[in-house]
Amino acid sequence: MKPVKVGICGLGTVGGGTFNVLTRNAQDIARRAGREIIIAQVATRHPNPDVDTGAVAITADVNDVINNPEIDVVVELIGGYTIAKDVVLGAIANGKHVVTANKALIAVHGDEIFAAAEAKGVSVMYEAAVAGGIPIIKAIREGLAANRINWLAGIINGTGNFILTEMRDKGRDFADVLAEAQALGYAEADPTFDVEGIDAAHKLTILSSIAYGIPLQFARCYTEGISKITTDDVEYAEELGYRIKHLGVSRRTEKGIDLRVHPTMIPVARPIATVDGVLNAVMVNGDAVGDTLYVGAGAGAGPTASAVVADIIDLARTFDAPAEASVNHLAFNDIEDVAVLPMEEVETAYYLRIQAEDKTGVLAAVASILSERGINIEAIIQKEPKDGEALAQIILLTHVVVEKQMNEAIAAIEGLASTVGDVTRIRVEHLN
Amino acid sequence: MKPVKVGICGLGTVGGGTFNVLTRNAQDIARRAGREIIIAQVATRHPNPDVDTGAVAITADVNDVINNPEIDVVVELIGGYTIAKDVVLGAIANGKHVVTANKALIAVHGDEIFAAAEAKGVSVMYEAAVAGGIPIIKAIREGLAANRINWLAGIINGTGNFILTEMRDKGRDFADVLAEAQALGYAEADPTFDVEGIDAAHKLTILSSIAYGIPLQFARCYTEGISKITTDDVEYAEELGYRIKHLGVSRRTEKGIDLRVHPTMIPVARPIATVDGVLNAVMVNGDAVGDTLYVGAGAGAGPTASAVVADIIDLARTFDAPAEASVNHLAFNDIEDVAVLPMEEVETAYYLRIQAEDKTGVLAAVASILSERGINIEAIIQKEPKDGEALAQIILLTHVVVEKQMNEAIAAIEGLASTVGDVTRIRVEHLN
Repeated sequence: MKPVKVGICGLGTVGGGTFNVLTRNAQDIARRAGREIIIAQVATRHPNPDVDTGAVAITADVNDVINNPEIDVVVELIGGYTIAKDVVLGAIANGKHVVTANKALIAVHGDEIFAAAEAKGVSVMYEAAVAGGIPIIKAIREGLAANRINWLAGIINGTGNFILTEMRDKGRDFADVLAEAQALGYAEADPTFDVEGIDAAHKLTILSSIAYGIPLQFARCYTEGISKITTDDVEYAEELGYRIKHLGVSRRTEKGIDLRVHPTMIPVARPIATVDGVLNAVMVNGDAVGDTLYVGAGAGAGPTASAVVADIIDLARTFDAPAEASVNHLAFNDIEDVAVLPMEEVETAYYLRIQAEDKTGVLAAVASILSERGINIEAIIQKEPKDGEALAQIILLTHVVVEKQMNEAIAAIEGLASTVGDVTRIRVEHLN
Repeated sequence: MKPVKVGICGLGTVGGGTFNVLTRNAQDIARRAGREIIIAQVATRHPNPDVDTGAVAITADVNDVINNPEIDVVVELIGGYTIAKDVVLGAIANGKHVVTANKALIAVHGDEIFAAAEAKGVSVMYEAAVAGGIPIIKAIREGLAANRINWLAGIINGTGNFILTEMRDKGRDFADVLAEAQALGYAEADPTFDVEGIDAAHKLTILSSIAYGIPLQFARCYTEGISKITTDDVEYAEELGYRIKHLGVSRRTEKGIDLRVHPTMIPVARPIATVDGVLNAVMVNGDAVGDTLYVGAGAGAGPTASAVVADIIDLARTFDAPAEASVNHLAFNDIEDVAVLPMEEVETAYYLRIQAEDKTGVLAAVASILSERGINIEAIIQKEPKDGEALAQIILLTHVVVEKQMNEAIAAIEGLASTVGDVTRIRVEHLN
């Protein structure tokens, strides 16, 4: 069969990895795809020292790729919202299929991009946008297609997971580990996207759309970072049989869809709790299959290229098939506009850490505040002041309650004369 | 678009589950597949009390389904090699696509079945044949298609994993737990297929073919069960930082492909070591993606139906596409006849447990036997005789060595005057 010709826009870490995988494994890839996949052109302004582009045509102008009549598939690996969006929409307008690793672009502009692609009868593939090399988009859109998905939860930012793992294993502070992660190149100079959960929220937005058949609603995703987690919290979590992970959680409820990224305590006995360092993991619960878990590298040249090239192979295989043979962009051929729940209406269990001068008095007062709001206590730990510190700590685990109730309870606890400073609150999910 | 009509052969656990999932989630399934999927006929000799077949036509004769001109897809959920093979080949001969959950049939007769299907331009789908609801066939054939797969290892028999988990958690004997598993319905009355590794070997055979692009070679799979594992071994493994799992392991080496099912000690720190009870898990290592792990229920009505129905949805979506748009049955469009390594040539590390009367003397003799064969020792534990027992135990971990060398070393150790009985040998894999 006729080869498929791809044009790669961007030759950084992921672009270089994609070039190298397509070249190194060309023979096996052709045996799988049923036809050759040829890199016809690369758009880049900077050479990549890890890539030998050989005889492949190089241009500094992405428009040369978009407008190249030879090219069947445009691979967008530039990142960001501006040039990347022009490349994707330009390629679609020219009737080319698109493969992208750009989570921000899909989470924020995906609805517009998919509509344009459907009007032109082309596909936009984005396996690499979520959880790097783990084929999680394919698992949810195809592998679990028989299921009504009930919930999903994922460690979908490797930097954050590396920081929390180091804090637990070595008792180090957040700021200290972050500085090391930046030095190692795991975290960007501006770490906001990673540690404040924005990157995870982009990915969760995409996963939720394909799980439930709802529009992409990044703006409605509740996002809370890990910068306030202390080594005390990490230790108390372990003492209670839990581990703190920065999770994206999304759940189908009768009132709407949960969509939230926040530090989360999960039972240590779950396999996902043992996913450490820069690894990513996603749990998906479906009504037929029950719980499934997918683990792997969430970033890096090789893993991301693995996902990009898998998409190219899917396109090559179905290149001569009618458009209906391709999987719907957001899994379903019609999208249901189910509401995303405001965070105040989300139901979850909680870990609370309260600092107090007079431990005995405050415990009675706290218990009464919770009890008045129907919040049941699952476990309590009281800690004497550490050497040189004046404050005792009270740690509570609660049963499941509506967030609004908990907000009111926390405000009341913080208002007590005997408590000091803010109450630390970490949501608890049992993932079952 | 025109609906796709399926005929289900077999209405036992999996057949019933498939019927119920297709019925319960019909609306969402049509939104994903782009067309309705209708159950046109069911062949069964026994009603299933968990299924309300309503107005669906029921027949006792599978030939009615195979020869039904209305039916597009025949779903074989009978099991075994005899009637099931006739159903699959008969359906193919009539130009129908096939979905099956039958690992034994695919592992033993897959090459013949796929050749027949390719000659007729139809697809035989078998996601449910390996690891139940985990979409592992799709992950390897499609999700990781960019990779040259280096190795894979899986807990692919839930009964065996349940038994080993109970032995570890509760210190119970193999025979005791097996009896309970039979009472609970996890294990068959004849547990040979599960505990002797035959079922796992069927699944490993399939996984290896699609990972490396080699023919199905069940007869060449080395198979060793878990019935000789003692609670002592389970405890010593933990003491050494390992856990015993019944793994299917397959690795690409310069000399050929490893293909083996046996009890295996793996480091406790790996997420796969925490996969307990009846759960299944598969690790796959590819040259681009690195390690990936997939976990979920390996059996049961719901999980297996999840995989069967996902296959039906894939067929429905590509129903009007040319045959080349479907994934190759064994992932590659040409199969390379790579040799399966005889077990004697496999390289792995070992755990040895030696019983001895005179501990000090025997240790020197054992060390000398290993050293003469270039086998390095990684760790040693010596155990005094337990109360009421006369024999001391010596436990060794070795570095990686060729199995043939180890066979010779074990024969020499068993020949020592100071050792008693057989040496227990458990292979050790670090999965990296």
